Amino acid sequence: MAAVAGVDVGGTNITAARVEGGAVTLREKRATPHTGPDAVRDAIAEAVRALGEVDAVGVGVPGPVGRDGVVHSTANIGGFDEPTPIGSMISDALGGLPVGVGNDANLGALGEVRHGAGQGSRFLLAVWLGTGVGGGLVLDGQPYIGAFGGAGEVGHMVAVPGGAECSCGRRGCLEAYAGRSGMERAARLAAANGEETRLIKAGKADQPIKSGRWAKAVAKGDPVATRLLDDAVRALGHTLGSLINLLDVDTIVFGGGLTEKLGQPLIDRIAEATHPVVMLPHRRRSMVEAALGDDAGVLGAAEYALSQRRG
Amino acid sequence: MAAVAGVDVGGTNITAARVEGGAVTLREKRATPHTGPDAVRDAIAEAVRALGEVDAVGVGVPGPVGRDGVVHSTANIGGFDEPTPIGSMISDALGGLPVGVGNDANLGALGEVRHGAGQGSRFLLAVWLGTGVGGGLVLDGQPYIGAFGGAGEVGHMVAVPGGAECSCGRRGCLEAYAGRSGMERAARLAAANGEETRLIKAGKADQPIKSGRWAKAVAKGDPVATRLLDDAVRALGHTLGSLINLLDVDTIVFGGGLTEKLGQPLIDRIAEATHPVVMLPHRRRSMVEAALGDDAGVLGAAEYALSQRRG
Repeated sequence: MAAVAGVDVGGTNITAARVEGGAVTLREKRATPHTGPDAVRDAIAEAVRALGEVDAVGVGVPGPVGRDGVVHSTANIGGFDEPTPIGSMISDALGGLPVGVGNDANLGALGEVRHGAGQGSRFLLAVWLGTGVGGGLVLDGQPYIGAFGGAGEVGHMVAVPGGAECSCGRRGCLEAYAGRSGMERAARLAAANGEETRLIKAGKADQPIKSGRWAKAVAKGDPVATRLLDDAVRALGHTLGSLINLLDVDTIVFGGGLTEKLGQPLIDRIAEATHPVVMLPHRRRSMVEAALGDDAGVLGAAEYALSQRRG
Repeated sequence: MAAVAGVDVGGTNITAARVEGGAVTLREKRATPHTGPDAVRDAIAEAVRALGEVDAVGVGVPGPVGRDGVVHSTANIGGFDEPTPIGSMISDALGGLPVGVGNDANLGALGEVRHGAGQGSRFLLAVWLGTGVGGGLVLDGQPYIGAFGGAGEVGHMVAVPGGAECSCGRRGCLEAYAGRSGMERAARLAAANGEETRLIKAGKADQPIKSGRWAKAVAKGDPVATRLLDDAVRALGHTLGSLINLLDVDTIVFGGGLTEKLGQPLIDRIAEATHPVVMLPHRRRSMVEAALGDDAGVLGAAEYALSQRRG
């Protein structure tokens, strides 16, 4: 069985995993450098070398990636200001090893479809409810990246025309309602307007509101948390309902911190919120929780490396 | 060169065309029966026989079609109340000739990508601005129908959450704002509320408002027509912008009566309205007018028949 390396490049850490037969057998972590592409290449190459001999490398990065492995931009890693051929740079550093590069949310979707909650699906959307809202598509069994590598940005579909400001600078994006940083902004605004909420702790008002705190506040009936989660569910409902009408996927997998803390009950609420929108309901369409946790990224990257070698 | 038949089943007429080398060489029309599937099968078979000998038949119908050629529902043709295996029914009537059945909007998109305004595109959306708003997708060069045959319903993506009532019974669909029947409903409401508009002719208040009348009213600065077209452009702008963020298509082709009357200036306005929404603009992404007119459907159906034979 061939061993390949799957690499997940995040804003904080680079995780490299040795993957054999669809399972992680070794893991290496490095802090993500924010001093530019050369430093990122070196960190990835070093982590991959530490995994021992591998036949190919797949790399997931947080941003749009062209069909040629060129990273066009990434907001979460400093120094990537120009289009960067990171794939060939890593390959050169590893003595010509085949390297495939893709968007992290798309590769996570591929991981879930091959080894996780999406097994058996051919038309899948993965939605990552974290700081933002990420999306990845697998259509007709293959990762879908679109014409220029930018596909899957479900978080920046318009949920409310002219609505809340999003961290991307646009208005009304799904992410502004269902991403933790948008929800946190709304919670702070409510608190500043005098609303009582246990989301913001006295004396620790500037600490980020983590998913666990959201879950606890909702469980205790906190009115601000409840209202903002209702807003998130409503925005997810009509955006994902619209997406089903457009793409007729058979499976939506939900992952990310907020999903992990709120689980299938949250997913069931989102599913219910799609019902008024969906044209062609189907009893075989399912919405489920992701199964691989943080490993979705590295397993998907490894799958991508294998598919590139075959192609 | 093989001759194939392309058939477009509309609410009023069935058009069957003999297609050779991507061109229509003969055309047959029949009135669409509304007395059920057997009558529709007979009309199609009769029209195809009148075209002379062909190797295969492609049929476009207005409704979702499964991968197995089963029509699940169609609002525009009477008597299709149950899932109907119209493909095998037609094949039996034509002595076992191979028959492929697809959704008309999807096959129209395929026609435009192979022989019309979408040539050279691999990731295309066709938007048909007619009585309703139809959509068809060609992804990675292939017609895209999704998991259960229901893909492409861009007209029933939510443009305005909780907005205007759509003819499908849902609220806020794109079609309620950018389809002629939704626009007409809004115009009649404005007139009933005492607004002056040349859209509704004195003494002919119950006649449908055709695309030509919309174009003329807008050209003359009619305030109701102007406002409703502005609403349509806005709804198209953020819905199609969202769709670009999700699918990263390289080409959007616009067809249908309203496009034919208002042309590229309308398309340019829609393109401009997508700009505030699109995450990853690309200079090679284009929005253009369809080139095949009513032939998109029969040419696409013929292409589909050919691809089925190869498959």
